[in-house]
Amino acid sequence: MNYSVIRYVLGNVFKMMTALLMLPVLVSIIYRENVGYLYLAVAAASFVIGTLLTFKKPENSKIYLKEGCVITALSWLVMSATGAVPFCITGEIPNYIDALFETASGFTTTGSSILSEVESLTHTALIWRSFTHWTGGMGVLVFLLAVIPMTGGSNMNLMKAESPGPSVGKLVPKVRQTARILYMIYLALTVIEFIFLVAGGLPVFDSICMTFGTAGTGGFGVKNDSAMSYTAYQQWVLTVFMILFGVNFNFYYFLLLKKTKLALKMDEVKGYFAIVFAFTAIITLDNLARFDKIATSARHAAFQVATCITTTGFASDDFDTWSSLSKTLLVLLMFCGACAGSTGGGIKVSRILIAFKTWKNEMVSFIHPKSIRHIKYDGKPLDKTTEHSVARYFITYITLFVISLLIVSFEGKDLITNFTSVTATINNIGPGLSIVGPTGNYASFNPLSKLVFIFDMLAGRLELYPMLIIFHPAVWKK
Amino acid sequence: MNYSVIRYVLGNVFKMMTALLMLPVLVSIIYRENVGYLYLAVAAASFVIGTLLTFKKPENSKIYLKEGCVITALSWLVMSATGAVPFCITGEIPNYIDALFETASGFTTTGSSILSEVESLTHTALIWRSFTHWTGGMGVLVFLLAVIPMTGGSNMNLMKAESPGPSVGKLVPKVRQTARILYMIYLALTVIEFIFLVAGGLPVFDSICMTFGTAGTGGFGVKNDSAMSYTAYQQWVLTVFMILFGVNFNFYYFLLLKKTKLALKMDEVKGYFAIVFAFTAIITLDNLARFDKIATSARHAAFQVATCITTTGFASDDFDTWSSLSKTLLVLLMFCGACAGSTGGGIKVSRILIAFKTWKNEMVSFIHPKSIRHIKYDGKPLDKTTEHSVARYFITYITLFVISLLIVSFEGKDLITNFTSVTATINNIGPGLSIVGPTGNYASFNPLSKLVFIFDMLAGRLELYPMLIIFHPAVWKK
Repeated sequence: MNYSVIRYVLGNVFKMMTALLMLPVLVSIIYRENVGYLYLAVAAASFVIGTLLTFKKPENSKIYLKEGCVITALSWLVMSATGAVPFCITGEIPNYIDALFETASGFTTTGSSILSEVESLTHTALIWRSFTHWTGGMGVLVFLLAVIPMTGGSNMNLMKAESPGPSVGKLVPKVRQTARILYMIYLALTVIEFIFLVAGGLPVFDSICMTFGTAGTGGFGVKNDSAMSYTAYQQWVLTVFMILFGVNFNFYYFLLLKKTKLALKMDEVKGYFAIVFAFTAIITLDNLARFDKIATSARHAAFQVATCITTTGFASDDFDTWSSLSKTLLVLLMFCGACAGSTGGGIKVSRILIAFKTWKNEMVSFIHPKSIRHIKYDGKPLDKTTEHSVARYFITYITLFVISLLIVSFEGKDLITNFTSVTATINNIGPGLSIVGPTGNYASFNPLSKLVFIFDMLAGRLELYPMLIIFHPAVWKK
Repeated sequence: MNYSVIRYVLGNVFKMMTALLMLPVLVSIIYRENVGYLYLAVAAASFVIGTLLTFKKPENSKIYLKEGCVITALSWLVMSATGAVPFCITGEIPNYIDALFETASGFTTTGSSILSEVESLTHTALIWRSFTHWTGGMGVLVFLLAVIPMTGGSNMNLMKAESPGPSVGKLVPKVRQTARILYMIYLALTVIEFIFLVAGGLPVFDSICMTFGTAGTGGFGVKNDSAMSYTAYQQWVLTVFMILFGVNFNFYYFLLLKKTKLALKMDEVKGYFAIVFAFTAIITLDNLARFDKIATSARHAAFQVATCITTTGFASDDFDTWSSLSKTLLVLLMFCGACAGSTGGGIKVSRILIAFKTWKNEMVSFIHPKSIRHIKYDGKPLDKTTEHSVARYFITYITLFVISLLIVSFEGKDLITNFTSVTATINNIGPGLSIVGPTGNYASFNPLSKLVFIFDMLAGRLELYPMLIIFHPAVWKK
């Protein structure tokens, strides 16, 4: 284990936190909110720690997969732990575990909250909450790679550990360049959504926060009722952009380069849109009796499908009161998740597609044990390593799910709350059903359960492995 | 595909049904119940069909894995379809789909019922219901192999397709001999349980039926309240034997041969007992407030743990009213299941152990990608094929689960009913929670959902693949 390179990157993460905290400080100046001084103090402390840690450059700057995982896990822990401090010392979320829950939920773009209402928060706290979504959405280390001249060497392993999905497609040979292209697309989509929301009459501050929440597929909003009181136009804008941010960003990259053929060959994107349309259609019909018009039913169905499949977590209606068919479909979407290489969470459409293809293949090889068959994905044969890693991912996923469920169920809450709260945090969704439904929150859980949720959110965001391997003693050997 | 050997084996299955139906006929004579004639008529019809199908011996009697799977799937379908006829024509279960549900539930040792009460059934119907559990428990084709001189050749593939668990341990080189030894152990345990129950004051008829239900880990009983009104002694006998029938039968075989060392090396059996004790202890403590004495709490905890992990489905208390911690633990046990090579259903302890070891291994190989590590199971290295087949089993399992849940949820029943009814049928448990709880039943589902459940019960009993591959066109090619 190369400890000095870990120290150096973590130092840069602290420095980055200083930079990120400047946004709430700026907002506090605009709205003349005194809490801004405390954000500034945390930013200053971060800068001092960061400077101390980065004072000495590491002699060996090689980052292997092992270091990549550990750096990723520790970076996200550092960010959550640091980002929680302002909430705590300003007294807006006095309990540190609650503040940590809220911040981890922000950075991991989960959107689960322990707050029963957000409208009394300062603008400074609101923008900080939403900003964590935006930075967390695309990945912080990708961000670091894009803006800071890093140590050089095999940074691909950092990106591999942080990127969502079973395999990272290198768009261009150089990692930094790939990261920059991704951030450019991200930034462009963010700006376009902001313009659409402002054009629809939403105040600028609200538009910024809601755009951050959509872009990171996070789910923190600025209203107690999430997006329920927004106009039909505003809800449609949010729906469309939630869906767009759930698309594999390689798709946009191919479109930019006018490689339309390659873009249209992406099985995952096709599967994603097929699922969105099919589920929206069924839920629209299922809810016809609840809403007077088919247009209203379609709007709420599309909004909730988008919010669940992209694991954003906004709500345009209290879907906890919907029929059990619609609820079952939405819960399935929460597990499904969006595309790999997007900002969305969950298992990812590509994993499900690969699992499904593996399964079809398994059926055939069960009949003809000696025949060798290759699974095709995006028109190319899929290598066995990816196939097996997907199968093992599922086992890891189930294991973490069951252990979390066991610990949380000791609290004695109802089965649906327990089941959907674990589902919502591990998949980075936000709300679940029952106590943690769209109108509820996570405040009533005990600190142990909250720590489990914090772990699940981080593990879910980092694709399970980085958070789990830091518990393995072999990782820490020199 | 070797059609003639399929025809020949199916013919023998029909003949075997004739033999099996003699038990209810005998009971109808003892209790002077007129319905016996109708059972006799079905038996006669079965015999005629069986004789016609077995008239011409197949030229090529080779059974490959493909034929083994198809034969297994079709045999179980034939048995369920034939066994349901008496229920239907005697008018005791007038609807044929209901009768099919009940019979498939019997043979697959699920124990789910569409009957709201069983005490008004004739003794003939009761013994037939329970007898299906006993024959289904150890597997019918294993039974055929043990008693009928079969076509010879590679019968191992038949046994492989029917036996529960990830891999079949051949106890002795000859399949028929293995089958006989297993049946001897099965029969011996059955007789011992019967003696214990009769000694405890349970009437002979009830003792036979309850023993059949325990041995097959089925769950059909003779009382409307399952085992709730039985004495503490009787409940303890049932608990102990449920647990014993959930043990991998190789364990008993090793004990018989005084190969105690080999028996004690079995990871699965150790894991199984560890889970039983741990879960019983937690639930005993969790329920202390509900029952006055710790002995009562321990009895109900042990009974429910045994009934859930072995997927039997008896109940000594209405556990749907227990705390959500206990309910969560019991639902987890339903998924877990008993040992491979036992009569129990579910995912099986061995699969979970292998999955867990794979998972630990995955963590290490994620850190050291180039190191080659072997998973140890029962003290020996596990071959990659078993490891991958377990991973793929999980994917198949989840796929079937999700599709079933989707179809069933169209009915609009509550989430817990939908989720646990699929869980209970696919794992061959019997009762679930809410509408299908220990005091409820499956009568209120529509025919489509019932067909889904019938399919899930059969797929669950036959370890998924045989029931699924019969839908693949490649299987039916000459």
